[in-house]
Amino acid sequence: MLLHLSTWQEIEDYLARSRTVVIPIGSNEQHGPTGLLGTDWMCPEIIANAAQKTGDLLVAPTFNIGMAQHHLGFPGTIALRPSTFMAAIGDWCKSLAYHGFEKIYFLNGHGGNVATIEAAFSELYAEASYAGRPRGFACKLKNWWELKGVMAIAQRQFPTGHGSHATPSEIAVTQWAYPDAIKSANYAPQVAPTGPIREALDFRARYADGRMGSDPGQATPEKGGELVAQAAASLIADVAEFSAEVAPA
Amino acid sequence: MLLHLSTWQEIEDYLARSRTVVIPIGSNEQHGPTGLLGTDWMCPEIIANAAQKTGDLLVAPTFNIGMAQHHLGFPGTIALRPSTFMAAIGDWCKSLAYHGFEKIYFLNGHGGNVATIEAAFSELYAEASYAGRPRGFACKLKNWWELKGVMAIAQRQFPTGHGSHATPSEIAVTQWAYPDAIKSANYAPQVAPTGPIREALDFRARYADGRMGSDPGQATPEKGGELVAQAAASLIADVAEFSAEVAPA
Amino acid sequence: MLLHLSTWQEIEDYLARSRTVVIPIGSNEQHGPTGLLGTDWMCPEIIANAAQKTGDLLVAPTFNIGMAQHHLGFPGTIALRPSTFMAAIGDWCKSLAYHGFEKIYFLNGHGGNVATIEAAFSELYAEASYAGRPRGFACKLKNWWELKGVMAIAQRQFPTGHGSHATPSEIAVTQWAYPDAIKSANYAPQVAPTGPIREALDFRARYADGRMGSDPGQATPEKGGELVAQAAASLIADVAEFSAEVAPA
Amino acid sequence: MLLHLSTWQEIEDYLARSRTVVIPIGSNEQHGPTGLLGTDWMCPEIIANAAQKTGDLLVAPTFNIGMAQHHLGFPGTIALRPSTFMAAIGDWCKSLAYHGFEKIYFLNGHGGNVATIEAAFSELYAEASYAGRPRGFACKLKNWWELKGVMAIAQRQFPTGHGSHATPSEIAVTQWAYPDAIKSANYAPQVAPTGPIREALDFRARYADGRMGSDPGQATPEKGGELVAQAAASLIADVAEFSAEVAPA
Amino acid sequence: MLLHLSTWQEIEDYLARSRTVVIPIGSNEQHGPTGLLGTDWMCPEIIANAAQKTGDLLVAPTFNIGMAQHHLGFPGTIALRPSTFMAAIGDWCKSLAYHGFEKIYFLNGHGGNVATIEAAFSELYAEASYAGRPRGFACKLKNWWELKGVMAIAQRQFPTGHGSHATPSEIAVTQWAYPDAIKSANYAPQVAPTGPIREALDFRARYADGRMGSDPGQATPEKGGELVAQAAASLIADVAEFSAEVAPA
Amino acid sequence: MLLHLSTWQEIEDYLARSRTVVIPIGSNEQHGPTGLLGTDWMCPEIIANAAQKTGDLLVAPTFNIGMAQHHLGFPGTIALRPSTFMAAIGDWCKSLAYHGFEKIYFLNGHGGNVATIEAAFSELYAEASYAGRPRGFACKLKNWWELKGVMAIAQRQFPTGHGSHATPSEIAVTQWAYPDAIKSANYAPQVAPTGPIREALDFRARYADGRMGSDPGQATPEKGGELVAQAAASLIADVAEFSAEVAPA
Repeated sequence: MLLHLSTWQEIEDYLARSRTVVIPIGSNEQHGPTGLLGTDWMCPEIIANAAQKTGDLLVAPTFNIGMAQHHLGFPGTIALRPSTFMAAIGDWCKSLAYHGFEKIYFLNGHGGNVATIEAAFSELYAEASYAGRPRGFACKLKNWWELKGVMAIAQRQFPTGHGSHATPSEIAVTQWAYPDAIKSANYAPQVAPTGPIREALDFRARYADGRMGSDPGQATPEKGGELVAQAAASLIADVAEFSAEVAPA
Repeated sequence: MLLHLSTWQEIEDYLARSRTVVIPIGSNEQHGPTGLLGTDWMCPEIIANAAQKTGDLLVAPTFNIGMAQHHLGFPGTIALRPSTFMAAIGDWCKSLAYHGFEKIYFLNGHGGNVATIEAAFSELYAEASYAGRPRGFACKLKNWWELKGVMAIAQRQFPTGHGSHATPSEIAVTQWAYPDAIKSANYAPQVAPTGPIREALDFRARYADGRMGSDPGQATPEKGGELVAQAAASLIADVAEFSAEVAPA
Repeated sequence: MLLHLSTWQEIEDYLARSRTVVIPIGSNEQHGPTGLLGTDWMCPEIIANAAQKTGDLLVAPTFNIGMAQHHLGFPGTIALRPSTFMAAIGDWCKSLAYHGFEKIYFLNGHGGNVATIEAAFSELYAEASYAGRPRGFACKLKNWWELKGVMAIAQRQFPTGHGSHATPSEIAVTQWAYPDAIKSANYAPQVAPTGPIREALDFRARYADGRMGSDPGQATPEKGGELVAQAAASLIADVAEFSAEVAPA
Repeated sequence: MLLHLSTWQEIEDYLARSRTVVIPIGSNEQHGPTGLLGTDWMCPEIIANAAQKTGDLLVAPTFNIGMAQHHLGFPGTIALRPSTFMAAIGDWCKSLAYHGFEKIYFLNGHGGNVATIEAAFSELYAEASYAGRPRGFACKLKNWWELKGVMAIAQRQFPTGHGSHATPSEIAVTQWAYPDAIKSANYAPQVAPTGPIREALDFRARYADGRMGSDPGQATPEKGGELVAQAAASLIADVAEFSAEVAPA
Repeated sequence: MLLHLSTWQEIEDYLARSRTVVIPIGSNEQHGPTGLLGTDWMCPEIIANAAQKTGDLLVAPTFNIGMAQHHLGFPGTIALRPSTFMAAIGDWCKSLAYHGFEKIYFLNGHGGNVATIEAAFSELYAEASYAGRPRGFACKLKNWWELKGVMAIAQRQFPTGHGSHATPSEIAVTQWAYPDAIKSANYAPQVAPTGPIREALDFRARYADGRMGSDPGQATPEKGGELVAQAAASLIADVAEFSAEVAPA
Repeated sequence: MLLHLSTWQEIEDYLARSRTVVIPIGSNEQHGPTGLLGTDWMCPEIIANAAQKTGDLLVAPTFNIGMAQHHLGFPGTIALRPSTFMAAIGDWCKSLAYHGFEKIYFLNGHGGNVATIEAAFSELYAEASYAGRPRGFACKLKNWWELKGVMAIAQRQFPTGHGSHATPSEIAVTQWAYPDAIKSANYAPQVAPTGPIREALDFRARYADGRMGSDPGQATPEKGGELVAQAAASLIADVAEFSAEVAPA
């Protein structure tokens, strides 16, 4: 069930049977010579949309801009400062909590988001902690590649050259969903270098074409489809487990 | 050309021929008994996507959450505080300006966004003004229903009961684009009341089913298609005019 | 009744009969070769002061600095960033609400303030909306030239060359109130150009002497007096209507 | 010379001969049974206006709302949070510095403002310090009662019962300037108690009628006139000294 | 009793007999050719630690970074912007208040902190004032050199050349506590100049070796020991008085 | 070399040979029935102090309050909101960078700090990224228990019941350094439960005595000494490696 294609009364009905909502969250940032700028927000959106077709999941609109300051040296990247990102996550959660959602599950597509999203959760909890009151909702962050069974498939599909940015697995997922937008390029070197992540100028100096440790040339739509199927199934199970969790008395 | 389905090198190429980008912006908020929660961000997205198929427009990902605090009394609404909204708009614009975009055009789908978006532009300009330097880019806000010729069609299609929220015109646009998500309901009264907009409790007390002044029952996908065609054509012309504008020496 | 010339006990007495307060709000910014820097905050102050002599209005001190970043290229302009302006408006309103004021009426003298003031109202309402509680007060913004009958007089007085900044009507109002501070200059061109408003350097490059579309040379104290009389009378009526408005049950 | 009754070109001319501007700053807050709510911003305004009639001073509009949170328990008080107050002072100073003012002199009328104004200056300096650049302007805060010779007169006029809030000296100054707004009341006790300053509820519980340590009944317009004359003369000298100060090489 | 060497249950026990906590607060900043960078936070820490050995004081960890932007021109200085400093003080106080502390006593070692700490207190009180509720705790700031009897000793020990920064008294206190870290240097001039405090570049230009008005060469560990003994005894008495203070009904 | 026991000229000398500084960072929060409230900031301080006795390390004052909102239900915990924590980390880093430090190494003692510290680094980098300039310094975060060889010792010392909060390893470190502050208690259960971390009320409901998964009763000063020795040696090596890292051309 897609929240944005529902009416408010349909959401009111949904809340009578579930207090859980899934938010695909990612980033719009360069993904090397062939990766789409939307890769990191489209992957969780693709997986969540697939999942809600078989499971009774409510999927919110996609939070499509994240913590991507280091990619600003490459055109098309759009980034939020961590402080802005945290404020926005806070407003999303407080809006949803207002309606009665008690479990807010972020399905994340960008490793660079993790620290800031966790800090945003802490900021939200802190608001309640200082006030000495219950928060009323719990947040959970899950990277799609950490859903059960997904990394095992990726490691089988891409035993070398998976890397950490513009990975063949994420590119395969977008190829599966957007076959008309598959790009090609020669990679030099075939497997990109790795190293630390700092400001944008430093990043571009280290990673000339934007990739980190990856060989995206191995991606195929078929591999993407296999990843999506596994991720969608695991997402349903993981959300169910989160929904079932009971707060301490 | 959709930014999120492009690579950074394709955007680099685009920048060699144009310095303009279009951002669909809206809100995810209740739209009465039959309107979709995503109506206000889907309308500009639908129109911009249609336009970029015929014009050489670059369309950024959709900014899908806006200033909707007054709708929080209805489930499914997700809102940003104005201060958060302004910070996020600022980060989007500064990201795009970093790449060389000089004209940032927001195609807006939510009247409630207008004041805050304009304030966000002023905040961005102020940053340059206090520093005594040029901003380097110009922002423009256009509501899709103010694109040339659109309101005339809407007034012909819906001579009465257009109203200001959950209007038949915006619902028609989403019906055209998402025919599988058309909803129906009995409206009582047929045309909703009007009045001021304040906090969420006040809003829900005034507008029992969420509509303001509208009779959305008049919407049809065909009317939506006519509106989209006109809006897309006018958008191309309006963006071209903005792109052609030259800064004073 | 002027709040700043009252004691707190007089305000306590006033609150027993009315819950409405009027705040003149404007900007301190360049107004062309002959306009006073204080024009935009003095006009609403002049009108509100005139009105409270005949009506039972409570007039707060004048909020004299506003959103004028674009005028910073001209000496004497003092501006608040939108974010600062919003925070200050918020504190004013919360202070007054603390005392029991339920209707806070801003009589505005600067078009450039409108978006930010409206965004500030939304920020205030949002605070209550997220918390799921009533705000307890309502805000209203009215530009003095939109008070009933005022624009009709201005159009009769200045059928051409009224423009949008350093207008003959606002300058006439200050001439009426401060006859010792009437300035003169040769205008070249007689009617100033118009165009968009962006950062300070851009503004100064477009509008060499600070005017926008106006010919202030038509202003006279007598015309100002006529405008003030109409505006003051309409203000009393408009405030009375706002005071009489009842919140929904 | 009053900035708000000048044109931008007059300020440009002024800047050719001086880089100093005086800002009257105070607070709008309860001043006991007979003190006017505007006392703390009107006193420095009155003194600065008097001074600029004889000296070549440029006086900015009055900053009329300050750090008065503790007085919120008394109707009519309008307060800024310290953080808002600091942001606004920052924007005022940066606006004026933009035009070339290098010495910004705040003539203060409210003891409760001092810490926050000094913190605001530090915030402004810090901005330059972290950036490793000169600030370009210097700020100075002076309470009007600390101008040379003023306190000696006050001590002679009011050897007992001067106190620290709603003092006879400040009330005398407003009586001199606004003789039509002189109020009277019975004070019980004649001299108000003293003690610490904390939140609004605590303040009202300690100081039943709003005074702290004062007997305002001793105020007369004549005493006010004497204080204003001395303060205005000393202000001219103090500003001249500040203007003459040379930055280190 | 040192909070950081206690368990939470020991603090719970302490709260059953006292609601007061002492926070040493200072700054880490240059202190001239021989003063230690930690001088301003070590002095109150030294004194509070000495006091808690004889009195039943609870001493929190030391707040060791403060408002030192003007010293940034000298290596080793670490400064918080006033706005950051205020936010952090707020979080400390709200944390302690959560546990039931009602009297929060800051023993300060840096004159440059005073305005910002007082502004932070006002920000904390304001939060309660706007909400119309009691704050629940009171804050007090005391500079260690203003503890009873301390300045008299310092004036006897250092009749000339005490100055206001890198004073012989504060350096003596650190010499007494850290005899292994006593430094020596030739001072030229023997007594440093005085003047205003502004941004870092200005400060370094005025005060070549970092001192202001002082001759630290007079410091000895013995003098430091005498100061600490007096300060510790007076601190116990001052805290007891603060603890005994009763809020108004 | 301890920064706070140095003069600014000693730091200037140090900068001629190294551009690296180590900041112990932690939290002041409950650590179960026997753990000291200062455990998380004292551990990195203890290790860094030990390391600087043998290596040429510069150790800054300890950043002793961190992200501990979830522990606020236990007396003595002092926490910063993530947003405050980030602002303060930013000011520390910018202060140190001002002096020429190019490598800022945070030795962390609190797992709950990690996300926020990383977000703070990103905020710092983002500032440079949006401005299109190099940041000029690099930040690194290392938890002391992740220093080479440390976890291996801890696993040997505490094969079961190490847990994640109030661990025997961290308590052993403080026992070694503060033998006079060793506490004892009966633990029930011997090994504490585990689970998620949310707001303070939730945390206290889940973890009755404050521990998470740990049996601190296994800690001894001797085990602590072994951990410190290994950690100090590894810290020297790790800092050297960070110092040697060269930025891309």
